[in-house]
This record gives sequence, C-alpha cells and structure tokens, in this order.
Amino acid sequence: YKIALLPGDGIGPEIVPQAVRVLQAVAEKFNREFQFQTAMIGGAAYDATGHPLPEETLAVCRNSDAILLGAVGGPKWDNLEPELRPERGALLPLRKKLGLYANLRPAVVNPALADASTLKEELVSGLNILIIRELTGGLYFGEKRREDLPGGGQKAVETLEYTTAEVERVARLGFEMARKRNKKLTSVDKANVLESSRLWREVVESLAGEYPDVELSHMYVDNCAMQLVRNPKQFDVLVTENMFGDILTDLASQLTGSIGMLPSASLGGEVALYEPIHGSAPDIAGQNLANPIATILSAAMMLRISFGLEAEATAIEQAVDRVLQQGCRTGDIMQPGKNRLGTVEMTEAI
Amino acid sequence: YKIALLPGDGIGPEIVPQAVRVLQAVAEKFNREFQFQTAMIGGAAYDATGHPLPEETLAVCRNSDAILLGAVGGPKWDNLEPELRPERGALLPLRKKLGLYANLRPAVVNPALADASTLKEELVSGLNILIIRELTGGLYFGEKRREDLPGGGQKAVETLEYTTAEVERVARLGFEMARKRNKKLTSVDKANVLESSRLWREVVESLAGEYPDVELSHMYVDNCAMQLVRNPKQFDVLVTENMFGDILTDLASQLTGSIGMLPSASLGGEVALYEPIHGSAPDIAGQNLANPIATILSAAMMLRISFGLEAEATAIEQAVDRVLQQGCRTGDIMQPGKNRLGTVEMTEAI
Ligand SMILES: CC(C)[C@H](C(=O)O)[C@@H](O)C(=O)O
Ligand SMILES: CC(C)[C@H](C(=O)O)[C@@H](O)C(=O)O
Repeated sequence: YKIALLPGDGIGPEIVPQAVRVLQAVAEKFNREFQFQTAMIGGAAYDATGHPLPEETLAVCRNSDAILLGAVGGPKWDNLEPELRPERGALLPLRKKLGLYANLRPAVVNPALADASTLKEELVSGLNILIIRELTGGLYFGEKRREDLPGGGQKAVETLEYTTAEVERVARLGFEMARKRNKKLTSVDKANVLESSRLWREVVESLAGEYPDVELSHMYVDNCAMQLVRNPKQFDVLVTENMFGDILTDLASQLTGSIGMLPSASLGGEVALYEPIHGSAPDIAGQNLANPIATILSAAMMLRISFGLEAEATAIEQAVDRVLQQGCRTGDIMQPGKNRLGTVEMTEAI
Repeated sequence: YKIALLPGDGIGPEIVPQAVRVLQAVAEKFNREFQFQTAMIGGAAYDATGHPLPEETLAVCRNSDAILLGAVGGPKWDNLEPELRPERGALLPLRKKLGLYANLRPAVVNPALADASTLKEELVSGLNILIIRELTGGLYFGEKRREDLPGGGQKAVETLEYTTAEVERVARLGFEMARKRNKKLTSVDKANVLESSRLWREVVESLAGEYPDVELSHMYVDNCAMQLVRNPKQFDVLVTENMFGDILTDLASQLTGSIGMLPSASLGGEVALYEPIHGSAPDIAGQNLANPIATILSAAMMLRISFGLEAEATAIEQAVDRVLQQGCRTGDIMQPGKNRLGTVEMTEAI
C-alpha cells in the first residue's frame, strides 16, 4: 500500500512520523507492506516553493493509495494574500482537486476520558456519533467578489450552490454509514429559509425509500446545535452541507472534551485523505508535547476504509484504549494521578 | 407608551397576556400608562386572513412604541408554500420591513438554575453573555433560485451579500454594548474562507480605534462553537452575521439549560421588537404549562431599552429572581423538592 504523507505545519511534522511508526509496527505484526512518500503542504510548502500546494504534492497524492495529513496553517502565514494562505491556497484546493466530497468525523468518547468533557458525564459517556460533512460544494467554492458602491463603502457577494447530484452522493454515504451503525440518519439543513436546503431535503427524502432499514429525520441547523448540547446521544449519523458541517463537527468534537483524540476521513475521489481533527497548534510545536493519538487513529481509519484491513485497524484502536486504561496521558488529556508522557513516549506505549 | 402585542401561534396566545399582566402591575406600582393593541401574525393570521403578515399588523406595529411578540409557526402550516409559511412569510418580512437589523440575545444563567445546564455547573454558573446577531442581511435575504440542469436534476443558487454600511451599524452596536458591560467584544466570522467575512472583519477592525476602551478580538465561527462549549465564560459580547448568529444564539441559549427563561430584543428601526427565544411549542399549547418568564423578561427588556424605564425593568427582573429563589418552577425548569406551577400561577407569583 502506497501512502502519501503530508506533515504540513506546526505539530504536523511531529505527529505524522508517530503514526508512521505505528503503521510500521502493524506491518511487521501482520506481515503487510506500506510504502511512504512525503510531500510538502501549507506554510512549509509556501516557504520552500512559494506555493502552499505545489504540483508535485498533488502528483504524489494522486499516485498513492491513501493520504495521511498532519495539519496546516499558523500565524506566520496569516497575512499572505488569501490564495497563498494554507487554508484557501492548499486545503480547499486539495479537497476540490481530489474530489473529496465527504468528510467523516466521528465524535467518540473514550471510556477512560468520559470526565474530560465540559458536559456532565452521563450526557457523554458512551457517546459515538458520526457527522458526515459535504466538503466540495456550497459557500466554500461559490463565486466570490467585492464591489465598490457608488455612495462609498463596498459590497461583498458570494454564492451558495448545490446540485441534485452533489447532494445525492453524500446523502447516500450517510444512509450507507447509518446502515452499518445504529440505523439512524439525521439530515441537517435550514429548509425554512434556504433554497439550497430545500433542494437538500428533497433529495435526501427521495432516497429514503431505498433504505427502508434506516430511520431518517430532518433537523434545522440551529436546533441541531442546541440538541448536540442538550442530548448528544440522541444521534447516530448526521449528514449536512459544507458550512453547517464545519460548525457542527467542531461543536461535536468539543463535546468529547478531547479533540486531541479524534480522527477524520475525507472520501469521494480515487484516493482518500485522513487527518486529525485538531489544528497545527503552533504554540506547542517542536516540544514533544502534542498528542499523537488523533493522527494514529486516522491511520487506523485509513487501514479500515481505504485498505479493508479491519484486524489491523482494530489492533491500533485497541492499543490506544489499552494505554489510556493503563493511565498514559499526554498533556492535553492529563488527569490527576495519571502518567504524563510526551509525543514520542505515548507512541511507544501504543 | 403604546405597545403592539403579536401573540402568534402555539403557546404565544398564552404567554403574551401574562407579560401584559406584569406590565399592568408595573403601571400601577410606578404610575405609568401602557396602551396595548393586539394584531395577528403567523399561522393564526394565515388562518384568519390568508396571509401570515397582514398589512394591518404592520400598521399596528409602525404605530406603536414597541412590539411584544409571542411565537409563530407549527406543524399545521408547515406544508404551505414558503412565502405563506409563518417563518418566510411573516417573521423574516417583519424584520426586514421594520429595519430590525440587530438581534440581541443574552444568555444568562439564573443562580437558582445553574444546575439545569447539561454543562458542568462550574462552567456556567454566573454566565452572562450577549450575542448580537445581524438580522436583515446575508443568506436570509439574498436572491434565491432553482434551475433545471440539462443532464437532469436541479441546481439551487443563493446569494450572500453584505455591505460596509450593514456591517458597520451592527458592529457599532456591539462596541456600544460591550462598553456598557465588561468591555470585551468578540466578532465572529469565517474570514479564512468567505469574502463577506473578510469585509466584515475589515469593517469591525476599522471601528476599533473609536472604542479604545473595548478589547476587540476576532474568532472563526467553527472555533466559536467549540469555545462556547469549552469555556463560555470567556465571552462578554459577541457580534456576528445572520446565519452564524442563528446557530450560535441557539447554542448559547442551550448552555443555560433553561431557554424558557431567555428574552430577546430586535433593534434598528423606529420601533423595536421583543420576544422570547423559545418557539411556539404546539405540543404544550393551551394547557397552562408554558413558562411565561422569557416573555415577561422580554417585556422588561422593552421597558429598559425602548422606554428607558430602568427601575421598572429591574423590578420585573428582581421579581422573577425572587420567585425562583422561593422555589416556584414551571414544568420545563422543575427540580426535585420545588413547587410546580402553571403559566398563570407563575405569573401571579411574579
Ligand atoms: C481551515 C478551514 C478552511 C477548514 C474549513 O473550514 O473547512 C477547517 O476549519 C476544517 O474544518 O477543516
Ligand atoms: C424561524 C426561523 C426563520 C428563525 C431564523 O432562522 O431566524 C428562527 O430560527 C430565529 O432564530 O428567530
């Protein structure tokens, strides 16, 4: 299996190599072969080549069976023009060019960390929800412009578009995932106000007949934000458009109290991309402080989803559970009486 | 003072009269005169006149010094065409036609109810934040259309617009409000992706010099949703655009655990509108079960903001605090060992 590694910025170059070590241990134990090729992205790529997403990086990605990304961005590149910044210059075009239309973000509470949440423990213990966010449409990729107004001042205009086909493919994934889990799908929109949400709801509704075993419901995005705080365990799988998904996935991951633990997958094109949910955390970069678990669990998702290596993925996940039970903690998830480890030592334990 | 009453649907016709009783008690005690004129809105107006926002209702509003609204909507009207539904047919045009560009939503935790939140008590006790939502721009009021695509299927297109002037007036209100409170203003946007957010941020930034006593910061909307769950007490005043505000205000109100307690104000035009944050709750309508406190506190906001009657507003707020301390509760905020009251009885206690 050929794996493209895109360490990126901040703690990215620390955590991606830790996931590689875990993959190498898996390779030995299960007699598999992983080939790694590293490429530059984000601020690091900009500094080296003048562009945050070099053509060569795209080629490496396209030539691989899966991609493991660290994180991009940092204050150093915040004042570049938008198209050269790590976000709009690298992350969004990478998603678009590779056709990664579905972002899967599980929000799972590890039993050892149930009291890490700011929510009361009974509300989140055992929480296991999956949010599927549409990732290549909507406001993110619509036309954007600025006009000078005759009386002075300016006007910013941007466009939100969705087509039947764009909604259908991600909604189908929602139904398929719900089928494999607890068979409940919540489609989130703002159909009482937005035309795109009305189309969204119609298309999702039109597929329901093909998945009679899945219980479908619709929820407005404002209510969904409330319900995630009020009673997150009511949900199984959620599916929503790009901007709503951006907000709701971050909200949901915060419910767990330990975003340093949460992986994600972006699917759709020929090659899928896996990355931790957390950012590049420039403030703790280079100090062996970062929690490598989200990246390690992203590698496990890769083994399961892209390579079908179920036993190997489970082995990683169980190793993570075990070291947490044994009391191993990085700084972000430290609790009284536990054993505080650095990035490298945590990986060794796993 | 002339007050327009728009009871609306569901529990609206139960709670608005309770706020009127409280206002009448205030009138007697402080020797003021309030004149009330009732008008129809929402499903009730549609049923009676064929339109959810009759011209006469607008005239009553324009002819008053302030408006007190109950709630609109319900399953009965959900299948009407969009322009006749209570939301798109009444609530949004009312905001637009009256020029109510700023929606103020305090999320305040009453000391008697700090354990009602799903968040751990120490995270929310003493919470007092104010979110200001832009209410007449953005996606809500942009052009909307549907196209048939040549290959089959459809495309929905809508437009998000903001002008310098639209951002400036609501941002100024944010600075002014922060000045009267703890002098911290957080402007929420998605400037790493949206052009309208870049304009938003530029305009807010350009005003900062006029308010040197206010500490301004900017936050991305996805991070803000996380931070509201992680540590809500870090905030004082937040200001944001219409759609982000819709989501974040609902999220913030849910943090308190008692949205039956939360009032709101919509300002900007000649006449301001006050309403509870909660909806029309058709499931409990007509049973003397609704919590009247959010509407009663909305009336208090009206006295303070529209009429400058500070002592009168405070008298209402203190009465609410006192009955809660005495253990009076409606069903939605009931706790073991407390005294359960109906809508009417709670109002009498207050
Ligand atoms: C960095 C930013 C452009 C990005 C997004 O909004 O998609 C991030 O928030 C994410 O969720 O991956
Ligand atoms: C009912 C709906 C149109 C409305 C909105 O989205 O503005 C509501 O959610 C609100 O917040 O007042």
